[in-house]
Amino acid sequence: MLSIRRLNTNDSQFWTDLKALLAWESVADEQITQTVRDIIRDVRNRGDNALLDYTNRFDRRTLQNSDELRVPDTRLQQSLATLEKNQRKALEKAAERVRAYHQRQLQDSWHYTEPDGTILGQQITPLDRVGIYVPGGKAAYPSSVLMNALPAKVAGVKEIIMVVPAPDNILNNMVLAAAAIAGVDKVYSVGGAQAVAALAYGTEKIAKVDKIVGPGNIYVATAKSMVFGAVGIDMIAGPSEILVVCDGQTDPDWIAMDLFSQAEHDEQAQSILVSPDAEFLEAVQNSINVLVEQMPRATIISTSMQNRGALIHVKDLNEAAEVANFIAPEHLELSVAEPQELVKKIRHAGAIFMGRYTAEALGDYCAGPNHVLPTSGTARFSSPLGVYDFQKRSSIIFCSEEGAHQLGQIATTLAQGEGLAAHARSAEYRILQNMLEGKK
Amino acid sequence: MLSIRRLNTNDSQFWTDLKALLAWESVADEQITQTVRDIIRDVRNRGDNALLDYTNRFDRRTLQNSDELRVPDTRLQQSLATLEKNQRKALEKAAERVRAYHQRQLQDSWHYTEPDGTILGQQITPLDRVGIYVPGGKAAYPSSVLMNALPAKVAGVKEIIMVVPAPDNILNNMVLAAAAIAGVDKVYSVGGAQAVAALAYGTEKIAKVDKIVGPGNIYVATAKSMVFGAVGIDMIAGPSEILVVCDGQTDPDWIAMDLFSQAEHDEQAQSILVSPDAEFLEAVQNSINVLVEQMPRATIISTSMQNRGALIHVKDLNEAAEVANFIAPEHLELSVAEPQELVKKIRHAGAIFMGRYTAEALGDYCAGPNHVLPTSGTARFSSPLGVYDFQKRSSIIFCSEEGAHQLGQIATTLAQGEGLAAHARSAEYRILQNMLEGKK
Repeated sequence: MLSIRRLNTNDSQFWTDLKALLAWESVADEQITQTVRDIIRDVRNRGDNALLDYTNRFDRRTLQNSDELRVPDTRLQQSLATLEKNQRKALEKAAERVRAYHQRQLQDSWHYTEPDGTILGQQITPLDRVGIYVPGGKAAYPSSVLMNALPAKVAGVKEIIMVVPAPDNILNNMVLAAAAIAGVDKVYSVGGAQAVAALAYGTEKIAKVDKIVGPGNIYVATAKSMVFGAVGIDMIAGPSEILVVCDGQTDPDWIAMDLFSQAEHDEQAQSILVSPDAEFLEAVQNSINVLVEQMPRATIISTSMQNRGALIHVKDLNEAAEVANFIAPEHLELSVAEPQELVKKIRHAGAIFMGRYTAEALGDYCAGPNHVLPTSGTARFSSPLGVYDFQKRSSIIFCSEEGAHQLGQIATTLAQGEGLAAHARSAEYRILQNMLEGKK
Repeated sequence: MLSIRRLNTNDSQFWTDLKALLAWESVADEQITQTVRDIIRDVRNRGDNALLDYTNRFDRRTLQNSDELRVPDTRLQQSLATLEKNQRKALEKAAERVRAYHQRQLQDSWHYTEPDGTILGQQITPLDRVGIYVPGGKAAYPSSVLMNALPAKVAGVKEIIMVVPAPDNILNNMVLAAAAIAGVDKVYSVGGAQAVAALAYGTEKIAKVDKIVGPGNIYVATAKSMVFGAVGIDMIAGPSEILVVCDGQTDPDWIAMDLFSQAEHDEQAQSILVSPDAEFLEAVQNSINVLVEQMPRATIISTSMQNRGALIHVKDLNEAAEVANFIAPEHLELSVAEPQELVKKIRHAGAIFMGRYTAEALGDYCAGPNHVLPTSGTARFSSPLGVYDFQKRSSIIFCSEEGAHQLGQIATTLAQGEGLAAHARSAEYRILQNMLEGKK
């Protein structure tokens, strides 16, 4: 019998309580910050030697030389070849769908020409080289390999480097097979802050990348935030969350299991159900109580549901949308009769799962959209990982003689207003009468 | 006579020397970090009262109550009405061009339907509320107001809040006029870390925003990096840079002045010229020596050019493109006969100014593209500020019954491989035979 928080929008304290429930701030303590700073400095100074030392120490390995850090391509191919047939088919099908969806995100360069011949536009190019961090050890997520590598691949990134720690010399075959399927170019069996430092600054063996993506523990997250600027990074992810909005007509077992599918990630995960139907909330509570017993991760689910979960009673679906926009959830399930109507009212969410059949888990693996999504309310200002994260834009300005003449006059006026004389003069040189007068 | 560094790609030390020349890392010392952390905590705790205290202390003001923090709309309109006619026309023309260019960046939601009826796509929505930081005091940049506010406006952001400090109670009229032209919704005369904290967390008078953009000093930059996560931020800008590639056929005075137009920003600014023509490099050096005398900011220009500038001799324009890609400059001028050919070889640059007439200064003010650009080599992985920075995406997944049946089988296989039983079960519920068998 799980005791899950009940909230009701009728309650005058509702929004305050909701805010308190959502509160979450990532805190890397002073000790972790200092450790990570030291590791990064050491890898910058000593390169592969530092990388070997940390890897042997933290991952209990006995590497002698930096060549051993590389996981040979033959090992990746072997993992793929020996994978259980059903798993291989599932991975390949998932990769195919993820690739197809992300191809729709590709952006093209564009230009337009003004009447005086001036050309303006943006030139869009892929990043040169990208690093993907993949957690190793107990939790092995081949789906994360696909979700991080494929958008980079679709963007046209020329080299994708994956790092994955091999504690006690153990690597997960399904993860290596996923790397082979996704077309990862090089894999190194290193992890932690030392792997992030190697990707950000380069070592003798590992080439410096332009951007680092992928999930990791607090050391990895802290290292990523420290190297930001030297390289790009994706968002620092908080705990996973789901908000289910249900009109009360979906099987309560389905909804309970959808909530569990977030809660089983870890104790900090957040699963919230919103419904205008009080009896339905009761029914889901009952399903939760029954089903949790059958779950291998019952302890994690119970902790997560009791500490961070909630069942929220709202007046109607309009109010449910208001709650959703306030939370700006990573995953939003609209398990209602008319999801096409309700979705129009949603302004902030990482991914929206519409209708009773769209379990959030389908999106985690194979629907096509990315499962790397903004957490902790950051969907208010950020987006799922996508091809656009691996492309960048250069503005294009190509003035005709006439265009420079016209624009030069505006620029000169504004530059003078800002007290920038060289800006003004540089523009003036291109003004026609000045050129005709031979004035330089 | 300025002594400017000469580099030659023939030199075996060239790439090492170039790397050393480019080296720049932003360092907020321990003192600044601590001060900013304290200010942010105080504003979070005490709201407007803290804001008043810091504003009175740092900006030498005598505000009594928080209503006085707001700059009345009438003041903005008055600034616009009393602006010198030529300046007003220039600002309005610049705004018109910037708006027109940025409209081309608007992204629309998209969807596609698969044969089984499953719908996939992305819903694109604007941010709700954005904060723009504008420096006050001596350096007043109305052009920055336009460049930061207009992309947000075009994106459809409902509320744009601008903060600008008023040291000694002084506000710049041209800055306020630009805010009126750009359609900024509210202006507050606060600055520094305290203004960033107010925007990030909200106070009684100032509403919490979703993203903070705009340039500022080291306190502002440090505060922005600390509130990142609670809100979105734009890139932390380093010193301004220009790389000019010239075939030797442009007037050397023009090129010298283009280099100055970066160098005059501040001592840390970086102006580099690359040419295959050794005599031309000599001619530009001569122009520099003559023209610097005529510049009001001669001292800043001299320091910048001598400490961080360089004249680089390359073998040919192909090698010039290689140097440009290595530097990944904020501003890249291609002052050559065939810029359309050369631009194809450019992979990394914030903005590319093509042809002899396209002075970088035109792009700073009025060509149309944004002047907020990635600095310090970050053009390798990031883009000019744009409408896309004020829109975000939500993935859309709407499975048909048949789609959920098919996808459920793949998801279940992969979830089991990852040891996530609730994910698997949640997907299994939607598999057809399970439903037919009445199995829940």
